[in-house]
Amino acid sequence: MREILIVGIGSGNPEHMTIQAINALNKADVLFIPTKGAKKVELADVRRDIIRRYVTNPQSRTVEYAVPERRSSDPSYMRSVDEWHAAITRIYEELFLSELGEDGIGAFLVWGDPMLYDSTIRIIERVTAAGRVAFDYSVIPGITSLQALCASHRIPLNLVGKPVEITTGRRVSQSFPLASETSAVMLDGEQAFAKIDDPDAMIYWGAYLGTVDEIVISGRLDDKKDEILATRAAARERHGWIMDIYLLRKGADFEQ
Amino acid sequence: MREILIVGIGSGNPEHMTIQAINALNKADVLFIPTKGAKKVELADVRRDIIRRYVTNPQSRTVEYAVPERRSSDPSYMRSVDEWHAAITRIYEELFLSELGEDGIGAFLVWGDPMLYDSTIRIIERVTAAGRVAFDYSVIPGITSLQALCASHRIPLNLVGKPVEITTGRRVSQSFPLASETSAVMLDGEQAFAKIDDPDAMIYWGAYLGTVDEIVISGRLDDKKDEILATRAAARERHGWIMDIYLLRKGADFEQ
Ligand SMILES: C[S@@+](CC[C@H](N)C(=O)[O-])C[C@H]1O[C@@H](n2cnc3c(N)ncnc32)[C@H](O)[C@@H]1O
Ligand SMILES: C[S@@+](CC[C@H](N)C(=O)[O-])C[C@H]1O[C@@H](n2cnc3c(N)ncnc32)[C@H](O)[C@@H]1O
Repeated sequence: MREILIVGIGSGNPEHMTIQAINALNKADVLFIPTKGAKKVELADVRRDIIRRYVTNPQSRTVEYAVPERRSSDPSYMRSVDEWHAAITRIYEELFLSELGEDGIGAFLVWGDPMLYDSTIRIIERVTAAGRVAFDYSVIPGITSLQALCASHRIPLNLVGKPVEITTGRRVSQSFPLASETSAVMLDGEQAFAKIDDPDAMIYWGAYLGTVDEIVISGRLDDKKDEILATRAAARERHGWIMDIYLLRKGADFEQ
Repeated sequence: MREILIVGIGSGNPEHMTIQAINALNKADVLFIPTKGAKKVELADVRRDIIRRYVTNPQSRTVEYAVPERRSSDPSYMRSVDEWHAAITRIYEELFLSELGEDGIGAFLVWGDPMLYDSTIRIIERVTAAGRVAFDYSVIPGITSLQALCASHRIPLNLVGKPVEITTGRRVSQSFPLASETSAVMLDGEQAFAKIDDPDAMIYWGAYLGTVDEIVISGRLDDKKDEILATRAAARERHGWIMDIYLLRKGADFEQ
């Protein structure tokens, strides 16, 4: 039976790779690498660097495939994601049938951890459900960008004994600062932090974490908003793309 | 100047170790290992196994230290944690002064990731603030038990584009199922899931994740409650301790 390994590769620093992930990549016959777009090009470079450093299996080969873009013009976000996943499902099916023998092992190198705002697991489930190609699969965790953020800022994610929320730029205003004391925000294309008004809020922001281009800024949200907006715009201009994440927090340890 | 490395070692599987963490341990002169209690003994074994497998620096030595117990009889949870941290702060100060030379490098092997429900960073900040010993420090991320849970169940943490909450057994009833669709629950000594009543809720439970004793159970909460309670009680009896974590979820992808 074919076997698919969904392998978390960490969030930019090749040394985020775990021994488990390295062993998984070395078990695979085929390493699947997505390509497309300026950002995808740099991310594909990190993946190739990881393969160069850690894959010692002389039998393995890499197969690059283009990922279609999501139709962001679709008025329904959910429907556009659903259709996008359907398209990727067909690409995966095709890859498994054409690139993997009946007992072949294929690995996907997934940015960060496959569990966090990533759809590889979901799409693999769809390929399974479609039933046109039989395979087993497993998931190997990887260091997320949220962990890279906290490590670079040397901060705990949670206040002592308190909950935290992980959310998106689109939704953070629904929870922070009213319902949540700690919100980690990913996938923010609209700089939602700039619209949050709370004199007590702190922000811990990071871009290109784990890479040589890493930038981090932290402080009171009110004091740092403009600096982050300007730094972000300049970096985005320079690179042609940006990946950033931040933590918003109010309150302190040992407050009831 | 002394240097302290707060190193995430993953959540039970020695192969969770990242290359970054392995390099950090090999830079250290002293590896600090906490000991005490039945659970601490097995955790200390995992730490020793990691050192045996990955530490090749012949100069390094391990120093074991006893961690005081938190006084759980204290009526104020917050105050008992605060006092407990103060006691550990003094132990760390003493360790740095007695075990590390002026330019010595010490590493703490922290379970999972130091950012998640762990106080090593906080206590190191207290040692810094006390000002009795000068040092610099950095944090290296590690695979959390939440990642091990999602990988073993092969599930995404979040529904598409939706937020998630990470919380404790003490607090989960405040959010799930009314305010949260996905809640990951850690530090649950009271089996809070058993008191949650929602016919649509799913549970993904795991104990001793990453170890040879790993147990996972998933399904509709109503259907699986009793099985998890019984399995947990029996495992706890057998080992003398248990570490478990679970995800509660209602709703599905692509629902608005
Ligand atoms: C599609 S999600 C993938 C997340 C990934 N699976 C993880 O575990 O971090 C992409 C989002 O992750 C965050 N991100 C990923 N890598 C990052 C990095 N190196 N620096 C800053 N943010 C990053 C950004 O918020 C970005 O919008
Ligand atoms: C003090 S917290 C430390 C968490 C750790 N820093 C991490 O990153 O996972 C301890 C809690 O983590 C969870 N936990 C840690 N290791 C685990 C494992 N191997 N299996 C199941 N749960 C685990 C349990 O919920 C436990 O109560």
